[in-house]
Amino acid sequence: MIVVLKHGVPEEKRAQLIAWLQGLGLRIHISDGEFQTVLGLVGDTSRVDIDLVESLDIVDSVKRVSEPFKMCNRKFHPESLVVEVGDVKVGAGNFVMIAGPCSVESEEQIVTVAKAVKAAGATLMRGGAFKPRTSPYDFAGLKAEGLELLKIARAETGLPIVTELMNINDLPLFEDVDVIQIGARNMQNFDLLRELGSVDKPILLKRGLANTLKELLMSAEYIMASGNERVMLCERGIRTFSDYTRNTLDLSAVPMLRELTHLPIIVDPSHATGIARLVPPMALAATAAGADGLIIEVHNDPIHALCDGAQSLRPEEFAALAEKVRAVREAIR
Amino acid sequence: MIVVLKHGVPEEKRAQLIAWLQGLGLRIHISDGEFQTVLGLVGDTSRVDIDLVESLDIVDSVKRVSEPFKMCNRKFHPESLVVEVGDVKVGAGNFVMIAGPCSVESEEQIVTVAKAVKAAGATLMRGGAFKPRTSPYDFAGLKAEGLELLKIARAETGLPIVTELMNINDLPLFEDVDVIQIGARNMQNFDLLRELGSVDKPILLKRGLANTLKELLMSAEYIMASGNERVMLCERGIRTFSDYTRNTLDLSAVPMLRELTHLPIIVDPSHATGIARLVPPMALAATAAGADGLIIEVHNDPIHALCDGAQSLRPEEFAALAEKVRAVREAIR
Amino acid sequence: MIVVLKHGVPEEKRAQLIAWLQGLGLRIHISDGEFQTVLGLVGDTSRVDIDLVESLDIVDSVKRVSEPFKMCNRKFHPESLVVEVGDVKVGAGNFVMIAGPCSVESEEQIVTVAKAVKAAGATLMRGGAFKPRTSPYDFAGLKAEGLELLKIARAETGLPIVTELMNINDLPLFEDVDVIQIGARNMQNFDLLRELGSVDKPILLKRGLANTLKELLMSAEYIMASGNERVMLCERGIRTFSDYTRNTLDLSAVPMLRELTHLPIIVDPSHATGIARLVPPMALAATAAGADGLIIEVHNDPIHALCDGAQSLRPEEFAALAEKVRAVREAIR
Amino acid sequence: MIVVLKHGVPEEKRAQLIAWLQGLGLRIHISDGEFQTVLGLVGDTSRVDIDLVESLDIVDSVKRVSEPFKMCNRKFHPESLVVEVGDVKVGAGNFVMIAGPCSVESEEQIVTVAKAVKAAGATLMRGGAFKPRTSPYDFAGLKAEGLELLKIARAETGLPIVTELMNINDLPLFEDVDVIQIGARNMQNFDLLRELGSVDKPILLKRGLANTLKELLMSAEYIMASGNERVMLCERGIRTFSDYTRNTLDLSAVPMLRELTHLPIIVDPSHATGIARLVPPMALAATAAGADGLIIEVHNDPIHALCDGAQSLRPEEFAALAEKVRAVREAIR
Repeated sequence: MIVVLKHGVPEEKRAQLIAWLQGLGLRIHISDGEFQTVLGLVGDTSRVDIDLVESLDIVDSVKRVSEPFKMCNRKFHPESLVVEVGDVKVGAGNFVMIAGPCSVESEEQIVTVAKAVKAAGATLMRGGAFKPRTSPYDFAGLKAEGLELLKIARAETGLPIVTELMNINDLPLFEDVDVIQIGARNMQNFDLLRELGSVDKPILLKRGLANTLKELLMSAEYIMASGNERVMLCERGIRTFSDYTRNTLDLSAVPMLRELTHLPIIVDPSHATGIARLVPPMALAATAAGADGLIIEVHNDPIHALCDGAQSLRPEEFAALAEKVRAVREAIR
Repeated sequence: MIVVLKHGVPEEKRAQLIAWLQGLGLRIHISDGEFQTVLGLVGDTSRVDIDLVESLDIVDSVKRVSEPFKMCNRKFHPESLVVEVGDVKVGAGNFVMIAGPCSVESEEQIVTVAKAVKAAGATLMRGGAFKPRTSPYDFAGLKAEGLELLKIARAETGLPIVTELMNINDLPLFEDVDVIQIGARNMQNFDLLRELGSVDKPILLKRGLANTLKELLMSAEYIMASGNERVMLCERGIRTFSDYTRNTLDLSAVPMLRELTHLPIIVDPSHATGIARLVPPMALAATAAGADGLIIEVHNDPIHALCDGAQSLRPEEFAALAEKVRAVREAIR
Repeated sequence: MIVVLKHGVPEEKRAQLIAWLQGLGLRIHISDGEFQTVLGLVGDTSRVDIDLVESLDIVDSVKRVSEPFKMCNRKFHPESLVVEVGDVKVGAGNFVMIAGPCSVESEEQIVTVAKAVKAAGATLMRGGAFKPRTSPYDFAGLKAEGLELLKIARAETGLPIVTELMNINDLPLFEDVDVIQIGARNMQNFDLLRELGSVDKPILLKRGLANTLKELLMSAEYIMASGNERVMLCERGIRTFSDYTRNTLDLSAVPMLRELTHLPIIVDPSHATGIARLVPPMALAATAAGADGLIIEVHNDPIHALCDGAQSLRPEEFAALAEKVRAVREAIR
Repeated sequence: MIVVLKHGVPEEKRAQLIAWLQGLGLRIHISDGEFQTVLGLVGDTSRVDIDLVESLDIVDSVKRVSEPFKMCNRKFHPESLVVEVGDVKVGAGNFVMIAGPCSVESEEQIVTVAKAVKAAGATLMRGGAFKPRTSPYDFAGLKAEGLELLKIARAETGLPIVTELMNINDLPLFEDVDVIQIGARNMQNFDLLRELGSVDKPILLKRGLANTLKELLMSAEYIMASGNERVMLCERGIRTFSDYTRNTLDLSAVPMLRELTHLPIIVDPSHATGIARLVPPMALAATAAGADGLIIEVHNDPIHALCDGAQSLRPEEFAALAEKVRAVREAIR
């Protein structure tokens, strides 16, 4: 950790700060420049409250040199992680297509869609049973019943299930789910993350609407430090001033996360844009940017079939997209 | 609800959409302009998925005319709500100063600070026992022990306790707390919000880092619709590109929320700015903007005392601020 | 234009508003719903100040149904525009690679880089002679001399020149330039845009740091309405809270602009990310998203050659990227 | 300047970087920690391109220790600047109320409003003659004629004129104006800023929609370094995701700029919120935050008088606000 002192700090205050830092068991390298003094802190700096030090009136700025994430840090895990879901491998060159409806609505719906996306090349199936809703008056999913319907669809197709968990107390219901998804709004629900450490299945962790990449990695670190290292990250759009799309898909997160971590990186163009017409180009862009997989909403709902649109693709649109995704993957090899 | 169709929509698709909407039990007013057609939907539109309709390719835009929040809507509750915490009233002209340390650290610390802030005019005491931390390796609070220390400080000073709850399962520990605070990261932890409906104590609900005012109100609505109408809202800064302060305090939220809701509105200048020097001016600004109260970090920690700074004010700084807050309240009367 | 009135508006105020709107020469369709009244304004609404009407206390919201951009609107120009720069075509399936150094520094530098990027497949050459700098103390480019050096490089390679104009008064110096670039900071320098209407050469208009797509199109409209229809748009990153990259490249702008306008859409991954390592993946992503071209910084500077990095690619990196771009274009055909 | 190297950098690359920096005439202090190496650069670092160094693959981060703004830096000018406009003083405890219509429309309008705001306590008059408009089809102001009308209003009331300049070439028309305003969109029109250095009148420089405080100060530095030190800064709202107000008024900029610079700080609550009802509370908040003045839109237009609303206040609303502003100033003394 590096502490840059302001210019012209009184000697006494400077000595007090150094003494206090030494009291935390650190060794201090002092580098006096013409215009600044830099303190290099050596030792276990994890006990230093960076915000506190930065806010002192004699301090110009503080920089943590070693990244605060360890278990998800590529520096310490140079080989890309392969997450296995049944026979499906994700990461390190293994690309995954996760597809399915936003919400599980009925047995017929989920089975139909599951068959369609499997035929088009999806290897994992998504479908919401517990749905986070901004309004308390909105439909919040079929819950336990929805999970049962997903299992029926799995039995019919062999596709493993990816579905969202919102509440620690629902965990027992997810026993037989294949991948637990943590939604953007729960990315910093730290108690929930910690609980996932004791779960023996992969976690798909979505980036929060206003979270930095470092915060996303720290949330992955919560799960991993609690005992479960099978974490996949998911970029799904951030909140900005731009108002044409629901969120702004931050695709540079893909190559940047690739440098920072060895965990697989999935992209969700459906929630990021909120507009079906934009899903194929953004799915292709995510693939070209080097993502390890895509999670895409597909439906077979009549109103959608009727009026081309909505966030979800129709099965035939998904099939055409899957084809192009394969071609782009070939192209960037 | 108003649906604006695109120009030149095929008659057949338009008829299908209208039939589908009528099938949801709605009456449709059609207004054909030269350049657009507007459908006015009359009836219970709460069953209409606005995102779905907006995404149809024949639809230009959809506007919900009636606001989706009811219980926290000033339209239906023109009188400002007064939330009572013991003898302390908040709202409708009753201004509250909530003060205390970021984290409860020891009996001596919390009792000392509680006495100091009481002497300076605070009527509620804050202090974190369960602390949300970005890193799994950071100190997460004294937890149950911290709550006990808060009760000791309350016994010594008579100040009711405001403290953060992060996890439904910790609720039993909060039995004897006076006000439950829900932090920014949990503003859309919908299961937690719903659970608070059955709690018989006021809730201080903080705005999320990237949440709109409407989303804040919908979260209040979750608590209220579940049975607890004693909700106070708290603006604590939003995430923007601006990098001088930790967050950007959005003070126009105060008069805007005042119009939209009858709930009390508290402002937290400490977390919004992250810099103690900015807390007094922003606290005064919040007061002048019409807030119903302030929540401010105050400490008596030697490193702070030593080097003026940090997010927290020293007791004497808080006392000076409280004085000026009273003067500003007088001035805007 | 649609005006939604608030619920329970006094009849008198409503009548006054309607009379005022009729006074502007508009016909008003009134649609009374149970919970709202919608006024549909028919006629030439360009004289209505939308902000003024929206701010009236009896008005809930106002929506302009017809887009305010006409000349750059795909609705009225369904065929994609092909912009010709010498023999080079851009748009409607004609993909362009624009490459060159950030700043023109010397004859040797610009000629060397121009030859290298031409060999790698670039068909236009970029290079800054007038450089916008945040600080008045920073090097602001070689100016007129830089333009002369670009012409030498053009003579040597045949590559047409793309270079930035910042000031109306410099226009005479740009007589012999092939494409005038307008930078992000000047996207809403309306007098400059208007002046470009009388220029007989293509304009490359970059999106401002905090501008919406509609604002970008309105700025294109300024140039076109003043007489020059040869405008190319450029997405180059927007300012968000995200701090890993210099800006956040908003690639969903590519398919969205494709729908809204017939103008060619170029992407600048160099300025968007500010990090050379991220340029190739984001360039490929932009290509996969359907861009009509890329503008990329390439240098041959020793410090760069020495330490792989910086925003600029080395010629051999650019050549490898150009190869992959061609493959991705093939893949998404 | 401080350069933090990555962990485990090859000795050779490190030596090359140090040699290159020394070649720029700098002395290098090397501080080797267990986990990092920090280079402290001593000498004239203004020639070092921080972006270039930061982007090198062996560099973790770079920090400029001395701020890049000098002439507007409070460090070198501890006394607050007083800007004089005729008899009116701004800054260092001298508070200014600038008021008037958005656009100058007619002699009657501007004279009426000028008299009204003078009576209410305004000491400077604002009014737009050259108006930046997003659309080329919108009314762009009365231009030269508008300036003449402002002078008539000044003759009638004695109030000095504040009005916006958009184009260097219009400068001769502004000869007889008292304060030149530079709008948000031109904050980084560097050539325009430089030209203002040779103008012998105060400049009111508005913060751009997406500009940091440092960028605002660098733009002030452009004007000052070119010879005109009479600059006033204006916070007028930034662009964020929040959609209730037109922009988000960033009031913490007031105390923060106070620390960083000795220039006067004005706040514009009218453009920041875009909603007249929010102007008084935000004007009071700005005053309580310590602003040196306010710039407020006031009109006497019939449609406004008819329907309370719009961004502009009516004269009687402004008078009531001015009264409260004085009271708040008294309160925070």
